[in-house]
Amino acid sequence: MSNLANIRIVLVNTTHPGNIGGVARAMKNMGLERLYLVAPKDFPADRAVWRAANALDVLDNAVVVDSLDDALSGCGFVVGTSARERRIPWPLLNPRECGVRSYQEAAQHHVALVFGREDRGLTNEELHKCTCHVHIPANPEYSSLNLAAAVQVICYEVRMASLLDEQGNLPSFDDWDVPPATFDDLELYFEHLEQALVDIGFHDRDNPRQTMTRLRRLYGRIRLDEMELSILRGVLTGIQNAAYRLKKFEQQRKRP
Amino acid sequence: MSNLANIRIVLVNTTHPGNIGGVARAMKNMGLERLYLVAPKDFPADRAVWRAANALDVLDNAVVVDSLDDALSGCGFVVGTSARERRIPWPLLNPRECGVRSYQEAAQHHVALVFGREDRGLTNEELHKCTCHVHIPANPEYSSLNLAAAVQVICYEVRMASLLDEQGNLPSFDDWDVPPATFDDLELYFEHLEQALVDIGFHDRDNPRQTMTRLRRLYGRIRLDEMELSILRGVLTGIQNAAYRLKKFEQQRKRP
Repeated sequence: MSNLANIRIVLVNTTHPGNIGGVARAMKNMGLERLYLVAPKDFPADRAVWRAANALDVLDNAVVVDSLDDALSGCGFVVGTSARERRIPWPLLNPRECGVRSYQEAAQHHVALVFGREDRGLTNEELHKCTCHVHIPANPEYSSLNLAAAVQVICYEVRMASLLDEQGNLPSFDDWDVPPATFDDLELYFEHLEQALVDIGFHDRDNPRQTMTRLRRLYGRIRLDEMELSILRGVLTGIQNAAYRLKKFEQQRKRP
Repeated sequence: MSNLANIRIVLVNTTHPGNIGGVARAMKNMGLERLYLVAPKDFPADRAVWRAANALDVLDNAVVVDSLDDALSGCGFVVGTSARERRIPWPLLNPRECGVRSYQEAAQHHVALVFGREDRGLTNEELHKCTCHVHIPANPEYSSLNLAAAVQVICYEVRMASLLDEQGNLPSFDDWDVPPATFDDLELYFEHLEQALVDIGFHDRDNPRQTMTRLRRLYGRIRLDEMELSILRGVLTGIQNAAYRLKKFEQQRKRP
C-alpha cells in the first residue's frame, strides 16, 4: 500500500472548513492520508473537526501552505480537477483513468490530486501547472459536486486501482531508466524557457498571448525525465548566451 | 437516459436531515432523481434544504413512506448496501458491478438501491429483502463512509455505466421472454412459502433458525420470472391443501 502513501490531496483556497473535514473523512475511508491545504479561509476550525468524524489524524497532519507551488513541491505527477471546458484543451482523464494513472505513478514518485475553490474551482493558471486534468462526468444539467463528494469519487477510483493491483489486474507501469522530472524542476524550466524567449525577442511578458500555456501543455504531455530536462536547460542557456552576445553587439552598433 | 429514471435511492431511518440533502445533491449530480425516505427522523427540515443546494427538486419530489416494503414496491431488482460481514453470505457486488447491473436491470423494471441508518446500516431482515448486496471496499481501518458519500460512490458508478452504454461499451442484457417477478410478488411468495412450511410442520415461527433467510437468498439468486413464480405458488397451494386435509384427518382420529 506504499503507493497510496505517495498520493496527496491538495485543496486550494477552501472557504468552508466543514468541507475540509468531509474531505479528510473521504480520504481516510479510501486509505489516503496526506492532505495539503493551500491558504484555507478558515482553518483550524471546529466545523472541520466535526465533519472529519474519526479521520482527525488526517486533519491533524494536514500541511498548510501559502501557495500551490509549495503544495506541489516534489511531485512527479499532478492532476487538476476541472469542471469547465477550457479554452486550450489539456490531456484529460476520466476518474477511472485518473485512479489507475495516479496509483501507477505513485510507485515512482509523489502524486498530487488538486481540487479548487467551492465556487470557482481552479484558475487557468493553476490548471496549467498540472500534468493532466480530470473531469467527473456529472449530470450536465447539474454538474457542481460538493467538494468532499468530488474528493470521494476521485479517491474511490484510486482505491479501486490499488485493489485491482493487489489482484494483479493492473497493467504494469513501464520502467524507465531515469527518474521523471519533478514539479519543481519543471517550474524552474518554464521560468528559464520564458526568460530565454524574452531574451531572443520571441515573447513579450506584457502581451503573453497563449505562448507559455501551450508550451506548458506540450512539455507536460511528454513527461520529461531528469536527464532530458537537463539537456533542455543546457539548450536554453546556450540560447541565452547567444542572445546576450547579440544584445551587446547591437548596443555597440548604436554608439557613435 | 430512461434507465436512470427507473432507479430509485431508498434511505432507511435517516437521522440527520443534512444527510438527506447531501444525498439529493449527489443523486442529481449523477443524473438520478427518485428519492424514497423510509420513516426519516426529521424531514422536511431546513438543514436538508441547505445541503441539497440546487437539487431542491429531488427533495421536493421525495416519497416518504412508513416501511421498506412500501419503498420497494414495484421493483424488480433491489440492492442493499452492506458494510459488515454477514453471517450468511449473500450475492455480493462491488460498486462497479452494482452500477452496471443496476443500469442494465433498469431497462426492464424499477431498481432500488437501499442505504441504511448512519450508525447501524441496514438490519439483517432488511438486507434479506434484497436481491444482492453491494459493499464499498473502503479502508478496513476506517470503513464508515458518510451516508451522502456512500450514495455518491454508488450513483457515480451507475452514471459511469450509463456513459459506457451510450458509447456502446456495455455488454447487452439477455432478453427474457417473461418479465422478472417484482419485489411485491416475491414478498407475497415468501409469506406464502413460510405459511406452507408451517402448515406441514417443517417450520416454527417461534424458533425460525435461518430457514427463511436461506430460502430468500436461494430464490433471490435465481431471479424468478412471473411465470415461474406463478408455478411455485401453485405448488405451495397444493402443499397447503394436502396439509389441510391431513390436519382434518388427524383431528377426526383424535375424536373418540
